[in-house]
Amino acid sequence: MSVERFARKELLNIKGRAASRVTLRRIPGLINLGAGDPDFNHPAFIADAVHKAMMEGHTHYVFGGDPDFKRAIADYYRKYGVEVDGEKQVVLTSGGSQAIFQAFAAILNPGDELIVLNPAYQGYNGPTTYFGAKMVRANMTKDENGLFRPDIGNIEAAVTDRTKALIICNPDNPAGCVYTRKELEAIAELAVEKDFIVLADEIYTEFIWGGRKHETIIDMPGMLERTMVLMSFSKTFAWTGCRAGYIIAGPELAALVGRVPMGICSVPVAFQRAGIEALKRGWDFVKEMRSHYEKRIEYCVKRMNEIPGVRCPRPEGTFYIFPDISELGVPSAKFVEGFFKEEKVRIVPGTQYGSNGEGHIRLALVRPLKDLEEVMNRFERYAKKFK
Amino acid sequence: MSVERFARKELLNIKGRAASRVTLRRIPGLINLGAGDPDFNHPAFIADAVHKAMMEGHTHYVFGGDPDFKRAIADYYRKYGVEVDGEKQVVLTSGGSQAIFQAFAAILNPGDELIVLNPAYQGYNGPTTYFGAKMVRANMTKDENGLFRPDIGNIEAAVTDRTKALIICNPDNPAGCVYTRKELEAIAELAVEKDFIVLADEIYTEFIWGGRKHETIIDMPGMLERTMVLMSFSKTFAWTGCRAGYIIAGPELAALVGRVPMGICSVPVAFQRAGIEALKRGWDFVKEMRSHYEKRIEYCVKRMNEIPGVRCPRPEGTFYIFPDISELGVPSAKFVEGFFKEEKVRIVPGTQYGSNGEGHIRLALVRPLKDLEEVMNRFERYAKKFK
Repeated sequence: MSVERFARKELLNIKGRAASRVTLRRIPGLINLGAGDPDFNHPAFIADAVHKAMMEGHTHYVFGGDPDFKRAIADYYRKYGVEVDGEKQVVLTSGGSQAIFQAFAAILNPGDELIVLNPAYQGYNGPTTYFGAKMVRANMTKDENGLFRPDIGNIEAAVTDRTKALIICNPDNPAGCVYTRKELEAIAELAVEKDFIVLADEIYTEFIWGGRKHETIIDMPGMLERTMVLMSFSKTFAWTGCRAGYIIAGPELAALVGRVPMGICSVPVAFQRAGIEALKRGWDFVKEMRSHYEKRIEYCVKRMNEIPGVRCPRPEGTFYIFPDISELGVPSAKFVEGFFKEEKVRIVPGTQYGSNGEGHIRLALVRPLKDLEEVMNRFERYAKKFK
Repeated sequence: MSVERFARKELLNIKGRAASRVTLRRIPGLINLGAGDPDFNHPAFIADAVHKAMMEGHTHYVFGGDPDFKRAIADYYRKYGVEVDGEKQVVLTSGGSQAIFQAFAAILNPGDELIVLNPAYQGYNGPTTYFGAKMVRANMTKDENGLFRPDIGNIEAAVTDRTKALIICNPDNPAGCVYTRKELEAIAELAVEKDFIVLADEIYTEFIWGGRKHETIIDMPGMLERTMVLMSFSKTFAWTGCRAGYIIAGPELAALVGRVPMGICSVPVAFQRAGIEALKRGWDFVKEMRSHYEKRIEYCVKRMNEIPGVRCPRPEGTFYIFPDISELGVPSAKFVEGFFKEEKVRIVPGTQYGSNGEGHIRLALVRPLKDLEEVMNRFERYAKKFK
């Protein structure tokens, strides 16, 4: 007699978690470019700030979150040209992954439709299934540089009278594009016209290359009341293990999201205090990370494009590359599996991001250049087998 | 045009959060015995352990949680006579409140029934409503000491063929009873016979008085596959702001709960490392807190029972008292409101825990004895107005 008889029925359509990194760490020689976990350790002043806050007694409930922290977040987000009220427009979450769940939890009923681009971050799948909503995919199309971009025609074609929301990732994981103002305006117009919500996953805003500037859809006409910006400290400050994220939305929508009874504010109060410090003094560290990522991207893109049958556009944002290996004539899942087995490098097949990701692979450039040189050597050797 | 048109429909039945403690703190002279937030600050070695872990680089993803932390939890729980496999039976959550949400999230569909005692902790209400489940209340009845206890007859009468689960709180907030082995066995037998799950909220196990011992229902015949124990570090180590909780269940049920896609493990990894230390070296601190709570309970129970029209049983567990003020002839909500206005003491009306709590009030003894003396003076003065 299985315990599944007790399960919420939608949960049965969700698989268990994949093997943990702990397991992977046990394989000697493995280089893991699978998960987007930066290899940087945040500066000591963050640990000091947590310690100080704990010693000062910031170890007790602060229902709804520390107002100073929420104000600091609002001040930070102002750099994207948006006036945000920390008290009324910021909802704290346990990292970006919980921001996704909580945003979905606020709006989705079974039968609702959520438009998700193809390819798109696979972390949207579980929560969609969980809430019994239907994921309607809208294919991205490639620009002249070979970079996947949002296709407004495909998005429009995916809208029905059951569409509750569209989720975008800007800068985009895995595709690497940074939305242009024109693209955002087109999406905003459609959202207002068809009356749906836009969930804007913006966790990579600090990692935009080539002088491009991040623009946010919440700033477009009519979007304040229909946008939830999903944010996280995880990538910005290499804080993945510290679980601090947040949602920015218009006051009414933020209040609605805040009503999801997921428990008392998930971010430990001492980390909220340290978050204030990070937003104040963490930018040299971010700048340093950025400089490393740029060098890594430059190196790997160059090496990839030297390999026959591989085409690798330079990402406009994020620290991922998403090369096209379709000319090698092997399904990307099979390619990735073999690469792991034969060369001990963990990367992700494009199909994990949707059917349109077939023929692509994602590498998270979260290892030092030296390791990436080794990865590229192994990659070149492995790829040549198919050509 | 309200944003409520976008809302998940069940969410509209959930109210916003109450005024934060920050707001209350601004009232001069206020003594807050409302929330169960211990007034103790945990020992410095905990802050040191967090700092050390962060400096050692425990700031990155550990999917599914740190195996050492889960093992330490399993070792700890063994004191209640249960063999627990840390890897397979422990699911980490952001405090006890998220343990509640996640447990409900694993099993509830709209129309399912959840049996909740009356009175019971009001934190069960929001998640039940959120999942569209029906809360069926089973009145507790008073024992010869005036203490509310679970009534197996009432629980049995509440069972229908839609019953998915029963939630109990042992030791009980707000009632203060500690379940006897007999009571647990009767509930276990019923759960097996009628095939429902028992959610056992056990966050107060370290606060049991008078030589009583905590026993857990997961240990009863047939219960391993149908019990989720909801636990938290919040009360045990006065860690309310650190948001560390967990669920213990049989391996199959734990795997099911772990599949709820609420995000990557909510407890910051450095706090998980510190949690290992707390479970190793935190017990002198717990002992000290216990000794304070016992004195506070003794004092307040005595003072309460000296007031005409008030009857206050001594709790068997927890750090709450739940006096019966029905003889004062005033609804408890009105009594509490007046007490706050006239005497600046925040307590909770029994009706917040269900209709059967009418005529009662809950005081969380989370202030030093000196403050509680002042509270009792104010209480005595205020109560005399009604007699």
